[in-house]
Amino acid sequence: MPDEHWRMGKTCRHKGKFSMLVQMVLVMSGSFFMAEKMKAIAKLKPAPGAQLIEAEIPTIGPREILVKVRATSICGTDLHIYNWDPWAAGRIKTPMIFGHEFTGDVVEAGEDVKEVAVGEIVSAETHVICDTCYSCRIGEGHHCQNCQILGVDFQGCFADYVAIPAKNAWPNSPELPDEIACIQEPLGNAVFAVTEGSELVGKNVLILGVGPVGEMAVAVAKVCGAARVIVSEPNAGRREKAKAMGADFLIDPLNESVAERAMEILGGPLVDVVIDMSGNEKAIRDGFLALRNGGRFTMFGLPSNEVTLDLADSIIFKGAKVVGISGRKIWQTWYTVRELLDSGRLDVSPVVTHTFALEQFAEAFELMRSGSCGKVILKP
Amino acid sequence: MPDEHWRMGKTCRHKGKFSMLVQMVLVMSGSFFMAEKMKAIAKLKPAPGAQLIEAEIPTIGPREILVKVRATSICGTDLHIYNWDPWAAGRIKTPMIFGHEFTGDVVEAGEDVKEVAVGEIVSAETHVICDTCYSCRIGEGHHCQNCQILGVDFQGCFADYVAIPAKNAWPNSPELPDEIACIQEPLGNAVFAVTEGSELVGKNVLILGVGPVGEMAVAVAKVCGAARVIVSEPNAGRREKAKAMGADFLIDPLNESVAERAMEILGGPLVDVVIDMSGNEKAIRDGFLALRNGGRFTMFGLPSNEVTLDLADSIIFKGAKVVGISGRKIWQTWYTVRELLDSGRLDVSPVVTHTFALEQFAEAFELMRSGSCGKVILKP
Amino acid sequence: MPDEHWRMGKTCRHKGKFSMLVQMVLVMSGSFFMAEKMKAIAKLKPAPGAQLIEAEIPTIGPREILVKVRATSICGTDLHIYNWDPWAAGRIKTPMIFGHEFTGDVVEAGEDVKEVAVGEIVSAETHVICDTCYSCRIGEGHHCQNCQILGVDFQGCFADYVAIPAKNAWPNSPELPDEIACIQEPLGNAVFAVTEGSELVGKNVLILGVGPVGEMAVAVAKVCGAARVIVSEPNAGRREKAKAMGADFLIDPLNESVAERAMEILGGPLVDVVIDMSGNEKAIRDGFLALRNGGRFTMFGLPSNEVTLDLADSIIFKGAKVVGISGRKIWQTWYTVRELLDSGRLDVSPVVTHTFALEQFAEAFELMRSGSCGKVILKP
Amino acid sequence: MPDEHWRMGKTCRHKGKFSMLVQMVLVMSGSFFMAEKMKAIAKLKPAPGAQLIEAEIPTIGPREILVKVRATSICGTDLHIYNWDPWAAGRIKTPMIFGHEFTGDVVEAGEDVKEVAVGEIVSAETHVICDTCYSCRIGEGHHCQNCQILGVDFQGCFADYVAIPAKNAWPNSPELPDEIACIQEPLGNAVFAVTEGSELVGKNVLILGVGPVGEMAVAVAKVCGAARVIVSEPNAGRREKAKAMGADFLIDPLNESVAERAMEILGGPLVDVVIDMSGNEKAIRDGFLALRNGGRFTMFGLPSNEVTLDLADSIIFKGAKVVGISGRKIWQTWYTVRELLDSGRLDVSPVVTHTFALEQFAEAFELMRSGSCGKVILKP
Repeated sequence: MPDEHWRMGKTCRHKGKFSMLVQMVLVMSGSFFMAEKMKAIAKLKPAPGAQLIEAEIPTIGPREILVKVRATSICGTDLHIYNWDPWAAGRIKTPMIFGHEFTGDVVEAGEDVKEVAVGEIVSAETHVICDTCYSCRIGEGHHCQNCQILGVDFQGCFADYVAIPAKNAWPNSPELPDEIACIQEPLGNAVFAVTEGSELVGKNVLILGVGPVGEMAVAVAKVCGAARVIVSEPNAGRREKAKAMGADFLIDPLNESVAERAMEILGGPLVDVVIDMSGNEKAIRDGFLALRNGGRFTMFGLPSNEVTLDLADSIIFKGAKVVGISGRKIWQTWYTVRELLDSGRLDVSPVVTHTFALEQFAEAFELMRSGSCGKVILKP
Repeated sequence: MPDEHWRMGKTCRHKGKFSMLVQMVLVMSGSFFMAEKMKAIAKLKPAPGAQLIEAEIPTIGPREILVKVRATSICGTDLHIYNWDPWAAGRIKTPMIFGHEFTGDVVEAGEDVKEVAVGEIVSAETHVICDTCYSCRIGEGHHCQNCQILGVDFQGCFADYVAIPAKNAWPNSPELPDEIACIQEPLGNAVFAVTEGSELVGKNVLILGVGPVGEMAVAVAKVCGAARVIVSEPNAGRREKAKAMGADFLIDPLNESVAERAMEILGGPLVDVVIDMSGNEKAIRDGFLALRNGGRFTMFGLPSNEVTLDLADSIIFKGAKVVGISGRKIWQTWYTVRELLDSGRLDVSPVVTHTFALEQFAEAFELMRSGSCGKVILKP
Repeated sequence: MPDEHWRMGKTCRHKGKFSMLVQMVLVMSGSFFMAEKMKAIAKLKPAPGAQLIEAEIPTIGPREILVKVRATSICGTDLHIYNWDPWAAGRIKTPMIFGHEFTGDVVEAGEDVKEVAVGEIVSAETHVICDTCYSCRIGEGHHCQNCQILGVDFQGCFADYVAIPAKNAWPNSPELPDEIACIQEPLGNAVFAVTEGSELVGKNVLILGVGPVGEMAVAVAKVCGAARVIVSEPNAGRREKAKAMGADFLIDPLNESVAERAMEILGGPLVDVVIDMSGNEKAIRDGFLALRNGGRFTMFGLPSNEVTLDLADSIIFKGAKVVGISGRKIWQTWYTVRELLDSGRLDVSPVVTHTFALEQFAEAFELMRSGSCGKVILKP
Repeated sequence: MPDEHWRMGKTCRHKGKFSMLVQMVLVMSGSFFMAEKMKAIAKLKPAPGAQLIEAEIPTIGPREILVKVRATSICGTDLHIYNWDPWAAGRIKTPMIFGHEFTGDVVEAGEDVKEVAVGEIVSAETHVICDTCYSCRIGEGHHCQNCQILGVDFQGCFADYVAIPAKNAWPNSPELPDEIACIQEPLGNAVFAVTEGSELVGKNVLILGVGPVGEMAVAVAKVCGAARVIVSEPNAGRREKAKAMGADFLIDPLNESVAERAMEILGGPLVDVVIDMSGNEKAIRDGFLALRNGGRFTMFGLPSNEVTLDLADSIIFKGAKVVGISGRKIWQTWYTVRELLDSGRLDVSPVVTHTFALEQFAEAFELMRSGSCGKVILKP
């Protein structure tokens, strides 16, 4: 029973199963597929780049569903895979269809599936957790020790179809636009990062780095009642976008001292919460300088190297709380995302800046590489 | 040294000191006061009503300040005193100048005062805490066992001048309108009630009873990220005001089943938080019926009698958390109020519906009695 | 597939399936069962009492396990069923084998079972949760809205064999004595009640009512670092047992004012936490009188009627937190129980006072009725 | 009014006031002091070492008390000052009587003192907080931005007498032995470090480094309900002492992999809480390796240099919470210390290993330097 691999959480779900019949590299067209084939973006060999391929439509196990993808969005992780950076080279087994953020229609459900039905529109929690480790059993599945990730550890969603465990499906309201539905997963990152560790009502928040998740974090922080959101970001275009998302003050860390400017804005050492979305060592050090005693420092951005910190001044004497964020709470964060979207409290549509056909993936990745964009959507 | 009484928290600060020279009952004018006299609204004898009197301007101790009142607002407690209900009869010692919500200018400061200076505009935390009991010493001054209340246990602010301990002064921004500055104390009640016990981001909230503090609670709950705020209130005018403050759904508990309607609105037993501002037994029972398992029930409204509850179904099987709210956190809540007002996140100005001259107090109290008003301001 | 009923959580798992071949009421012997029969204690008709019967050994579905019971203990709930009180009459459908606390050997496992294997010794979380409601999906399965209870809503463990969903099985260490293994479920109640809502390190705790779960709560509170545990209990024998479990002070509520005595012991209004295990109205009112401002009042005991409280003085002015407790956290509480037992930190063996053969059930229930016992074990 | 400096928190209370009449360096005797003189251990010039001097008995302001020291203990900070390390050279202004942990009798109280009376036995919270900064005003005085420390920023207690602000006095029970009374301040560090951030009931704790505060932390963690306390410490004698304080498992980090050994002990990545008392970079890195996903890492030990960490693996992917600890909560932690000592729950007497006369300070500091001791007491 193939989907039993999920339960063990030890092995890649589709390992060795992806029969890669790359009969031809497809260019600009998906029109001549046979019924059982689909187009997909895959990393075929351990090197930079990716290819549009024709692949078999996945078959599903008794607890899996097959989803016809409506829209998928590109994550920073996908860019790492595309660029084949050291992290990707160490983690990804080729051939691999990547991509993990999506929305689509359930077109087939395994015989044991109860969570969703054919015809529903779903997105997915992309972390497939083992349900058996200590973290999973105490309700902290987002800390699962055996987590497998869609499009990283098994075949992903940059494709016409994607197979996922039914337990990972999240039903969407039919009213939710596809462009928003497919970015709920990274929006969940933003919501989790902003809300975890302390509440924000009447608090002053400094967000370091506003790529797409940072931009969403700005909007979320405002919805959570933050009095003022200060953004530090070297890219002028992203600063402007942050302003549109609700940022009250903007800092260019290349030209200003972040901590001094934040204190000047607030009239003292009054940054209650710092949220690092950059993974940049200087930004992190700046953030600790700005943080008030007793404040919260949330780490979400992934540093590419080790980071050197003065722990005494940054954390110990400050009585700081540092919160590491990975993934989203399953399903608490998803419910929060849904309620904020459904109620109209949160509008993240400005974050979506570009939409491409799946076949235009190379153009889309170049745009991602330039940084001159928010979320980029691919439509199969 | 008179202000030492504060420290002990055992006795009323001004007890026996209010030399009531009621030379005449003043009508409609304050122009002929001598320098050391002031006009004030006082309860002179243990009976309903109040009188406009001429009183001596308070003298201050070394740690007290004298404030020239700019504006004062009427609290439900003041109405209890005015009406001389059983609670008032058991608590208030006449003669008593009542009133406790105000803003004004510091015109004199005792020799040991460091907290504020002459010329500053201040409101006051109206609970004078002992600083020595266990609650005070563990940072929970709002739970002080020896709390004395301005305008209840010692002479209040329905007057040209009021004397308070300097440690109770809260400096206001000069930009803050007097009408808002003077209602920060009850706004603090609303903020404390809404925020204590669990955060509201993406949550559904049911508020029972929307007098002025309830109305403010509606606006605060929205600022805190509540997905939906449902209000149950029998008074149609107040329901309308709640709508203006941001309520998403309105229930008339006289004509609808509160719990059934709330579940209908939300599509299930999904009220995460109930905030009772009414003190009404039926409302409280309704609220528990509506509350989801594991939800929070906040009690702020004061029932006039004992309340009978099915604890098994209301609290135990539900795994409910019940949170009692009295006063405000000193000074955490005040900072939250300030940040929300200063940053423009929160607008409670619609709550203020009427302004009267101090001399028109009788008219103001009649209006309060009718319930056809929000906050009512008196200006000396 | 019979075990699918669990998923829906809507219906009783074994409803209509318990083919009651009560060929004879068995007296004092289990030796002449056929291979497919077992002895069991069942409520055959809606009236007080129970009967020893011969029943078919349960068959299991693909996600269920069959357990050969080593030991089972009698819960207060079982006594309610035995006595056929109004709660039981409203909830229990006869015929019903009751009983839910047990330990035993897995002798058969359905084809889809992965959680445990034949040969393991297991106890069970007795609340079968639906996994699909909001509470379940946010990691609060103990608040499940569709919870079904072993021995209440479907056939229980007062028998040679019991069938349970594999997901509800909790593997026991082979070193754990059967008498302790089978009382882990109520011990979990005690651990959850003691730990939920605030930590106890250096705190003073008042426990109201010390039946077996209350006795365990005394020991747990001490392990949690409580400075002093005060017990109020009218039964002298139970007070003595509480002392043996670690209680520091004992109050007889029939002869002393609980609140006055507690304050006398502590030198002031310094009861930080009250845990009601009695469900008794007077005890609950006493407890609120004793509770300090800002303290925690945990409700676990189930009042048989509605309770009348002065909410203003008991909860609102006190700033009290009231915490309703039902069940246990799945599986956080179970892990805590395991760690405390395995590490030798917690010894609850004195709570077990009597062991009977299953056939002696009538004697055991009479003893339970008398109150002159701790936990009573039945061994098939 | 000299004690007003406390209020401002900006300046050293006794700065420039310590009239150092060092008429002679005293050797081994305090018998020929005049009435207004006292003996003290002072750092007279910015260099290693200290001297026994004759100094004037401090005069007190209206809100200060004069305490005749019964016993004082040596903190690691005092050793830094004695050794004149870079931190001390940058912080301490000579001449300075150092020392801050003590117990003694109140022999004089300023006219405005209400907190304690002559005749009481007191210890002191050694952090003199400003009461006016944001942290102080929100009940987080332990995060005060203007904190002044006894024996660091103003004259300390290695002397016959010490003057402190009355608000910093903590009354001791007359039954408390002097050796325990004087170490309550560092015991408060241990209690704060162990309890802050998450509760320990049934949890597995790894303590890195067991100097005296670490030893106390071991005992405190056990009192808090920790299932198992694992200690990593290179000094064999300290490991033995940790065992005596209740440690369940000992690791020598010079000969074993801390993380591997901890997981071997626990049967998996199950260290719930790491408490670093060492400030050692390798220990900190070891600790993060050992920490389970979602665990708490408490930092108390002060690294002498910046520390390099893999934040992605240590904190972000782990979803770790890092908690910086400085000082103690005022007065929550002191109450916890008192309740645990008074109730007999906690015994830290084995931590006190040596007692010297104040005149033997050089011998005491040499012993401290060797590390072959627990807490060392000096008696004037």
